Amino acid sequence: MLVIMKDHASQADVQHVVDLLTEAGAEAHLSRGEIKTIIGVIGDREVIYTLELEGLAGVEQVVRVLKPFKLVSRDFQPEDTVVRVGAATLGGGAFGVIAGPCSIESAEQMLAAARAVRDAGATMLRGGAYKPRTSPYAFQGMGVEGLKLLREAGDETGLPVVTEVLDVRDAATVAEYADVLQVGARNMQNFMMLDELGTMRKPILLKRGLAATIEELLSAAEYVLKGGNRDVILCERGIRTFETYTRNTLDLAAVAALKTLTHLPVIVDPSHATGRRDLIAPMARAAIAAGADGLMIEVHPDPEHARCDGPQSLTPADFGALMTDLEPRIELEGKWSGVDV
Amino acid sequence: MLVIMKDHASQADVQHVVDLLTEAGAEAHLSRGEIKTIIGVIGDREVIYTLELEGLAGVEQVVRVLKPFKLVSRDFQPEDTVVRVGAATLGGGAFGVIAGPCSIESAEQMLAAARAVRDAGATMLRGGAYKPRTSPYAFQGMGVEGLKLLREAGDETGLPVVTEVLDVRDAATVAEYADVLQVGARNMQNFMMLDELGTMRKPILLKRGLAATIEELLSAAEYVLKGGNRDVILCERGIRTFETYTRNTLDLAAVAALKTLTHLPVIVDPSHATGRRDLIAPMARAAIAAGADGLMIEVHPDPEHARCDGPQSLTPADFGALMTDLEPRIELEGKWSGVDV
Amino acid sequence: MLVIMKDHASQADVQHVVDLLTEAGAEAHLSRGEIKTIIGVIGDREVIYTLELEGLAGVEQVVRVLKPFKLVSRDFQPEDTVVRVGAATLGGGAFGVIAGPCSIESAEQMLAAARAVRDAGATMLRGGAYKPRTSPYAFQGMGVEGLKLLREAGDETGLPVVTEVLDVRDAATVAEYADVLQVGARNMQNFMMLDELGTMRKPILLKRGLAATIEELLSAAEYVLKGGNRDVILCERGIRTFETYTRNTLDLAAVAALKTLTHLPVIVDPSHATGRRDLIAPMARAAIAAGADGLMIEVHPDPEHARCDGPQSLTPADFGALMTDLEPRIELEGKWSGVDV
Amino acid sequence: MLVIMKDHASQADVQHVVDLLTEAGAEAHLSRGEIKTIIGVIGDREVIYTLELEGLAGVEQVVRVLKPFKLVSRDFQPEDTVVRVGAATLGGGAFGVIAGPCSIESAEQMLAAARAVRDAGATMLRGGAYKPRTSPYAFQGMGVEGLKLLREAGDETGLPVVTEVLDVRDAATVAEYADVLQVGARNMQNFMMLDELGTMRKPILLKRGLAATIEELLSAAEYVLKGGNRDVILCERGIRTFETYTRNTLDLAAVAALKTLTHLPVIVDPSHATGRRDLIAPMARAAIAAGADGLMIEVHPDPEHARCDGPQSLTPADFGALMTDLEPRIELEGKWSGVDV
Repeated sequence: MLVIMKDHASQADVQHVVDLLTEAGAEAHLSRGEIKTIIGVIGDREVIYTLELEGLAGVEQVVRVLKPFKLVSRDFQPEDTVVRVGAATLGGGAFGVIAGPCSIESAEQMLAAARAVRDAGATMLRGGAYKPRTSPYAFQGMGVEGLKLLREAGDETGLPVVTEVLDVRDAATVAEYADVLQVGARNMQNFMMLDELGTMRKPILLKRGLAATIEELLSAAEYVLKGGNRDVILCERGIRTFETYTRNTLDLAAVAALKTLTHLPVIVDPSHATGRRDLIAPMARAAIAAGADGLMIEVHPDPEHARCDGPQSLTPADFGALMTDLEPRIELEGKWSGVDV
Repeated sequence: MLVIMKDHASQADVQHVVDLLTEAGAEAHLSRGEIKTIIGVIGDREVIYTLELEGLAGVEQVVRVLKPFKLVSRDFQPEDTVVRVGAATLGGGAFGVIAGPCSIESAEQMLAAARAVRDAGATMLRGGAYKPRTSPYAFQGMGVEGLKLLREAGDETGLPVVTEVLDVRDAATVAEYADVLQVGARNMQNFMMLDELGTMRKPILLKRGLAATIEELLSAAEYVLKGGNRDVILCERGIRTFETYTRNTLDLAAVAALKTLTHLPVIVDPSHATGRRDLIAPMARAAIAAGADGLMIEVHPDPEHARCDGPQSLTPADFGALMTDLEPRIELEGKWSGVDV
Repeated sequence: MLVIMKDHASQADVQHVVDLLTEAGAEAHLSRGEIKTIIGVIGDREVIYTLELEGLAGVEQVVRVLKPFKLVSRDFQPEDTVVRVGAATLGGGAFGVIAGPCSIESAEQMLAAARAVRDAGATMLRGGAYKPRTSPYAFQGMGVEGLKLLREAGDETGLPVVTEVLDVRDAATVAEYADVLQVGARNMQNFMMLDELGTMRKPILLKRGLAATIEELLSAAEYVLKGGNRDVILCERGIRTFETYTRNTLDLAAVAALKTLTHLPVIVDPSHATGRRDLIAPMARAAIAAGADGLMIEVHPDPEHARCDGPQSLTPADFGALMTDLEPRIELEGKWSGVDV
Repeated sequence: MLVIMKDHASQADVQHVVDLLTEAGAEAHLSRGEIKTIIGVIGDREVIYTLELEGLAGVEQVVRVLKPFKLVSRDFQPEDTVVRVGAATLGGGAFGVIAGPCSIESAEQMLAAARAVRDAGATMLRGGAYKPRTSPYAFQGMGVEGLKLLREAGDETGLPVVTEVLDVRDAATVAEYADVLQVGARNMQNFMMLDELGTMRKPILLKRGLAATIEELLSAAEYVLKGGNRDVILCERGIRTFETYTRNTLDLAAVAALKTLTHLPVIVDPSHATGRRDLIAPMARAAIAAGADGLMIEVHPDPEHARCDGPQSLTPADFGALMTDLEPRIELEGKWSGVDV
């Protein structure tokens, strides 16, 4: 950490900062320029992140040099984390495609979707049993009944299943039925849930928050790894900006950046990112080219009657065509389909 | 709801939309122009918010005319909601000031803070027992021990106490100790928690999310009211923008807008909004002038040794001076201090 | 400037940075920690802002300690800049109100507006002769004819007049007719225009860009001062964010921050910031409380027939009522109406 | 245009809106629901965009159905616009790569850059003679001297040259030397410059503004086409968001969206979008996959000594390697290198 003092800060102000640092157990190294004094701080991550020196008399700016995360960083673990679930593999060169409907609506819908996405080459099946909805008047999901239908569709098709934990109290129940536990964008900084999921032994799919920085996404993942669960898949799904033509703004540079910063696999959800069916294919292609380890795509056997996110769901036929189109692109990146055959 | 069809959309496309609407139980009214056909939709809020017609063949844009909330709107209840807790009143002309430290650290700290803010004229006491922190290496709060210290400080000074529910599993425990339950910005769209708090009989202080629109904040409050709990206080605490000089961008126009849209009281947290001690006083003044019903301000007996948010905490002396400065301003707005004497 | 090297950066990488710095005429001071090496750089502002070291091998982060501006800062000039135009004064305790229609439409409209705002207590008259419009199909302003009408209305009422320079080629012409030259938000970083206005001897009203940081606004003002023109009035008019309820998001904390960072006067334009007539009064009040030195408000004798910005224009009656309401508030801040009587 | 009235708006309010519409020469069609009345408005684009009905008594919302642009839309011209400059072609399947240094610094630097990018397969040469810089203390470009050096390097290598018009007064001079005239992000809404460039007979490269929506970018292009100049190339170069890890947030979904909305070619500038050398290659690949018609990349023979944007410039060797990597990707999209051989 660096503490940059204001121009001509007094000797007393500088000394006061040094005293506070020493008291907290950190080392302070002074560097005095003609105009500015800068204090270099050396100490443990825990100490550094507890110190809050902004606002002290004479302090202009505090620059944190140590990142707020450690276990997730490539410095800590250079080789890629590879997540394995049943016959599916994601990361380390294995490209995964998680597909299925936004929400689970019936046994027929779920099974039709599962068969369609498996036949097209998806490696995992998704479906929401608990739906976060802006309005309390919108459909909120089928709950445990939905989890059962999802599990059945997964078993029937041999696909591992992914579903969202919306309430930390349901985490254990969801884990009974699902193979991968998803944390939605709105819960990315639900730290108590992250703590809980850190104690579990199922992979976590962590979606980036609408207003979360890359550093905050990595810090959220750090919560899970710190709890002992090393299998975290990060998911870029668009951030909120002033642009309203698309539902969110897909940040593919974040994907490329994450691949350099962390060993965790990174996937992209073009469905939620754009909210527009016609932009899913180009963004799926672009995600692969940007270095993503996988995709998450909404597919519904009958999008027009979907109870959630119909406007951005692909039909099985469209999804099949897309998968065919993506195949040579995945190969071009030197990756392979993450499914045992 | 209005469905705006693309230029020269085909008769079949239009009919298809009308069929879907009728099937869902809504009424469709066609208005054909030379270039564009527009379909007016009439139906229940529940039906309208389940329909998702964007992306259908021939559909250009869907405009939702009905708001996704009802119970919170001034149309539904014209008169101000007034929240009463012990000797404190907030809303309907009563101006409340909630003050105290970011986090509860010890009995001495809590009691010193409580006395200081009561003497200066605060109407409620705040303090965090569970702290949401970006980094898992930062101080996470004292938990139940902290709740007890907060309760004691409140009892000792006669101030009702406000604290955050970070984990829905702790809601009942927090409600044992606290008078007002706070939902933090990161949990504004934790819908399961909102549902739970809707069943409780303590007022809820709901903070606006970092990337939440005014409409989403109102929809979140709607969840609580729909559950039966009518005592919700909204809190503007800054949104996330490209500007980094301040921690967030305080949106005071949202306060004025909320006062026209809803009957719920609206307060402002200038401490978290700016993250800078020197901007708290001007933003507190501006909030009052913008029509806020109260303020939430961080006060610490010894900010330099605070374990959280020290840089934005006021000393008791600064807080006292601020309260004196604010008094005539509250009067100028025709409001009175929301505390029985 | 500080150059923070990556963990365990090689000796060669560090030396390479030092060599580049020395070559450029700056001094480099090394501070080696166990994990990180940090290089402090001392040199002229011109040299420092030409160096671009990000991306060099081994470099993690570059922190610029020197601000990119100097003449506009309070460090350079502690006392307030006071702008005087005819009988009007703005800054240094004098509160100015610039009012008038968005666009100049006719002699009658302009004169009616001028009389109305003068009678209500405005200190300057505004009106647009050249209008920046998103669509080329919208009304673009009356041009020189408009400037003449504005001048006549100003002379008739004794109010100094403010108008926008939209094209640098028109700057001299506009300066013939106007007392204060406005730079619109879209031109805040039109550096050639700023250079040109820096050579002129009329005060400049510089509006903050839609996506401009506080630091960029000050840097834009620095261009004008560097050219020799010291009379710059800064104007906060809302920034672009994800919130769409208001036209822009009014950043009043920026006003309070600017008052500490610069000696230049700062005014607020609540009309463009909110785009909603019903939010102008509360935001005008809040701006005063936040420390603004003045306001810029759109007033039209007949808003419903305005050719531009009708929805956010006040009627003369509304403006009169607002001015009466604001008077005690200006006094409360220890300021006085900036007009000689 | 649709005017949505407030719940239970009075008959008088509705009639008043209808009267204003009729007076303006538009047709009003009423649609009365039980709760809401909606007024459909039919009329010319010019009339519709002059009407401003928001804020009228009883009006809740105004929805503009007609887009503010026409000539740039695919509805107006379904087939791709193809821009041809010398031996270079861009659009309609021809993929163009514009490369060269951020700023022109010397004859040697320019010629070395030109040869390097031509040998690697670039189709046009870029270089800035006038540089928009946030700080007035940063290097501002060589001016006309630079234009001459750029022209010489273009002639020597047979590459058409692209450079920015920073000041509308220089447009004719720049057009003497350059083949394509660039409008920078900060000037995207410099409407007077757009008008001027609309009268010229050289292609325009129009960069998206930092806070410009897709619709505003298209409206800016409409200014140029309305003036008679049909050769406009759009350029996505990142928008400003809360994320600070990258210099801007590259919005590749906008590229895919633009390809459906307009016939104009769309290119991507990954250098300015990310500001980080290591993200240029992945974003160049992703841009191609997203459907871009070309790329604009900064290449400097000696990035460490570049006077501008060194951190994001590629070396000739890196650029050569990137071009080799991109070749099969361009082919995969069914496009060909836009250069005659």
